Amino acid sequence: MTLTQTPSPLREGLRLQVMPEPCNMVIFGASGDLAHRKLLPALYNLALENYLPSGLNVIGFARRPKSNEEFAGDMRQAVDKFSRRSPVKPAVWDNFASRMQYNQSTFEDADGFTRLKALIEQNDKERGTCGNRLYYLSTPPSDYPIIIRQLGAAGLNKPGENGSWARIIIEKPFGHDLETAKELNHLVHDVFNEDQIYRIDHYLGKETVQNLFVFRFANGIFEPIWNRNYIDHVQITISESIGVEGRGAFYEQAGVVRDFIQNHLMQLLCCVAMEPPTTFDADRIRDEKIKVMQAIKPYHARLVDDYVVRGQYGRGWVGDQEVESYREEKDVKPDSVVDTYMAVKWTIDNWRWAGVPWFIRAGKRLPKRVTEIAIQFKAAPHLIFSNAQVPAHEPNILVLRIQPDEGISLRFGAKVPGPTLQARSVNMDFIYGSSFMTESPEAYETLILDCMLGEATLFTRSDEVETSWGILKPILDWWKDHGPPDTFPNYESGTWGPRRADGLIESEGRSWRRI
Amino acid sequence: MTLTQTPSPLREGLRLQVMPEPCNMVIFGASGDLAHRKLLPALYNLALENYLPSGLNVIGFARRPKSNEEFAGDMRQAVDKFSRRSPVKPAVWDNFASRMQYNQSTFEDADGFTRLKALIEQNDKERGTCGNRLYYLSTPPSDYPIIIRQLGAAGLNKPGENGSWARIIIEKPFGHDLETAKELNHLVHDVFNEDQIYRIDHYLGKETVQNLFVFRFANGIFEPIWNRNYIDHVQITISESIGVEGRGAFYEQAGVVRDFIQNHLMQLLCCVAMEPPTTFDADRIRDEKIKVMQAIKPYHARLVDDYVVRGQYGRGWVGDQEVESYREEKDVKPDSVVDTYMAVKWTIDNWRWAGVPWFIRAGKRLPKRVTEIAIQFKAAPHLIFSNAQVPAHEPNILVLRIQPDEGISLRFGAKVPGPTLQARSVNMDFIYGSSFMTESPEAYETLILDCMLGEATLFTRSDEVETSWGILKPILDWWKDHGPPDTFPNYESGTWGPRRADGLIESEGRSWRRI
Repeated sequence: MTLTQTPSPLREGLRLQVMPEPCNMVIFGASGDLAHRKLLPALYNLALENYLPSGLNVIGFARRPKSNEEFAGDMRQAVDKFSRRSPVKPAVWDNFASRMQYNQSTFEDADGFTRLKALIEQNDKERGTCGNRLYYLSTPPSDYPIIIRQLGAAGLNKPGENGSWARIIIEKPFGHDLETAKELNHLVHDVFNEDQIYRIDHYLGKETVQNLFVFRFANGIFEPIWNRNYIDHVQITISESIGVEGRGAFYEQAGVVRDFIQNHLMQLLCCVAMEPPTTFDADRIRDEKIKVMQAIKPYHARLVDDYVVRGQYGRGWVGDQEVESYREEKDVKPDSVVDTYMAVKWTIDNWRWAGVPWFIRAGKRLPKRVTEIAIQFKAAPHLIFSNAQVPAHEPNILVLRIQPDEGISLRFGAKVPGPTLQARSVNMDFIYGSSFMTESPEAYETLILDCMLGEATLFTRSDEVETSWGILKPILDWWKDHGPPDTFPNYESGTWGPRRADGLIESEGRSWRRI
Repeated sequence: MTLTQTPSPLREGLRLQVMPEPCNMVIFGASGDLAHRKLLPALYNLALENYLPSGLNVIGFARRPKSNEEFAGDMRQAVDKFSRRSPVKPAVWDNFASRMQYNQSTFEDADGFTRLKALIEQNDKERGTCGNRLYYLSTPPSDYPIIIRQLGAAGLNKPGENGSWARIIIEKPFGHDLETAKELNHLVHDVFNEDQIYRIDHYLGKETVQNLFVFRFANGIFEPIWNRNYIDHVQITISESIGVEGRGAFYEQAGVVRDFIQNHLMQLLCCVAMEPPTTFDADRIRDEKIKVMQAIKPYHARLVDDYVVRGQYGRGWVGDQEVESYREEKDVKPDSVVDTYMAVKWTIDNWRWAGVPWFIRAGKRLPKRVTEIAIQFKAAPHLIFSNAQVPAHEPNILVLRIQPDEGISLRFGAKVPGPTLQARSVNMDFIYGSSFMTESPEAYETLILDCMLGEATLFTRSDEVETSWGILKPILDWWKDHGPPDTFPNYESGTWGPRRADGLIESEGRSWRRI
């Protein structure tokens, strides 16, 4: 068994992986976009790398009538189109396809779930799936309640036999606000125990995010300077160059807060800010993440417009393409005040971070697609060099690049070669792909495998979701009741967001990174 | 005026350099190896970059009869052969050569110095050298006393007119031991003031050594971890693959201690260990370097064989070439006990470094040519990961590479790409040449220009030299009176030195870096 096709000396001697137990994996919404683009390619890639047990059965559950073979055929097309490892290798696929089944039903039809149960139990007997069940909710969030209730009613919330397991993966968005998140938690907890529930945030499956744990906690030299004594401020950016891409109806409901901030951005922030957990166990890590969120004081309603900037894109140019405004997108109201950009300044009121501002921004139709965490350190407390030697005294910046080109770079001052002493900032770089001579796996590969292994570290717990919504509640409430302080649209497509966002950070003499 | 031929964006906006004042530069021993290989190529390279004033006159002072033109012709050949920027550009050379003069004399002949003075004074009048004098002692050390006395007797120790200067550069070795170094200092101080004396150690002119100052003191993030709390130990290596290369007679007198340790290695150690000076001024930096050396307790004679390992190379293979032993080299006694390798463990007894061992090694006929400083940090105090995740818990190592391929690399633990969490050590690299898209200047270019500018930071002060010899005195004394504890030769050419050197570091559970 090999981990990759390209051998790398850095991978030598790594221990063999633990193989997950066989199981029935049921994908609800198997005809949907997520299943096609992400889930099946992820499963295939895992199969290709021999990470999957031979006793895995994938059961598609959806409305449209289809035979097992038709379902497998559809999925093969999806993998061919979307897998990072396409084209499909026939030998691997054939074996994989022989374990794909289709269960046609609406989610409202209790019989459909009875048939699902029978199929699963038959697999347990005939296909060695050992009573293990993994449910993947890959449907619109409005379908979550009915599916969860039906699973409970059919007794599918429980594993098949002693020592086996039943788990459910729930896609984001988990709730629409604090109240609905609580309701959904309540509903899921009626049917499943918390330790059966895997709330997915695919950002946590990204290599650089996981590497953040290793970077911070397997090295001796970063933690000592990872605090208010040495860090001036932190910037986290999630920037997309695309607009809502036909998902106007979804976006009118969501906005950037629900799309990026409540989940991805809050998770990134927690991973950077958390205290070292005692062990790398799911609950110990989640405990520390919660503590970070608890230390972020939600803004009082009347401060929201001072510390939170909302934006919506107008027309403009992204690259060499002229693009329309958000309000001109399909299924968007022509006078919509939905946010496609948000910037916020937060402080984390604990001993480690007191006084260190965190500047967060996320938006659509910005100049490029990039997600990064930039830790800007304080400058040296006393400069021994003359102004002529070190003209611009630039601070050290550690950049953790999440996407694209995952990697780490450290900016520091170095002497310019030449017979006199002059300094300039340069970068020391670590690039994931080239260092390990291998592609990073897709986040979904990591997360699906983790769930099969019962490893919940990279999934979010009910209290995390609720605390995160709690921080955003006053912002969402204020926005619902008040118009934006400047007229929407307030930034041109292809620019770095509204002017007010610059004011937010520049009022303290800092500035957004030019990425 | 451009700094380099290849424009680099990192160099944009740098201020114009300060141009040195015109001067007469007198090279004693102008027919010698150092002048040919290093000094003239350095001067030519500086001229090429427009760093030199148009009123510079270079006066060769040596025994052999030569016309000005013959001297210039010899030097052109030397530059063509040894300059990093050869072949010589005729336009630059012709201008440069027109300002080259030759003064034939023995060092014993007072008339020769009278003629030199007349020539210099004539230049001051006719060639605009403004009364400034720079003497370069590029002769065997045995000639230093007579030249210095003659300069004094001729009144050449003083500048020509008000506001001008006279400086003297003295090559290493500065003394043969503590007593002779003191004698030489005494002798020079009879003729020159300390601020006229530039004791050269060309290692201090190397880019990475100067960069060490910038790295440590222009950045906010390294100093906080640059101490006993975070550093486990430091290793400094000066390794050469060549043998004594025909310089057997010199080496029989010197050994590796005088060739590498007393000067280069001690200077590197001081630059790494020193406290931040208040300003980047020569005396403030030297004050701090002295404090480091003062904190190194010289070994009591009977401890020398426990903490200092000496070695001498035997026959062996370096690369694909079979080489002879030191005792078989030309001009070496067949029973010589001169050291061609030394390793030592030192501690620096101050608040910053208490308890941190410094492992130093230098030698000839080792497997490769490399000089580096490796700072090995302590491992993370508590590991949150399981053994399976982080199998070998490797510490962070910061390597400052002095030669070849000057640069900095930081070794740290990162996640191995893949769906499960496993860590491996990787390097983040900064390579001088490729970052600035330009070659580093030769150390001699930097140092000659500095001396012309009156910038003494990279030269050593009298008390530095004496303190350094003081640390080595008990070692040299013991070695003079006692044979090596193992039989010489005690290491094969092409290996990393004697076994006892491994014992020195391994007794504490550490090991020499495999470079």
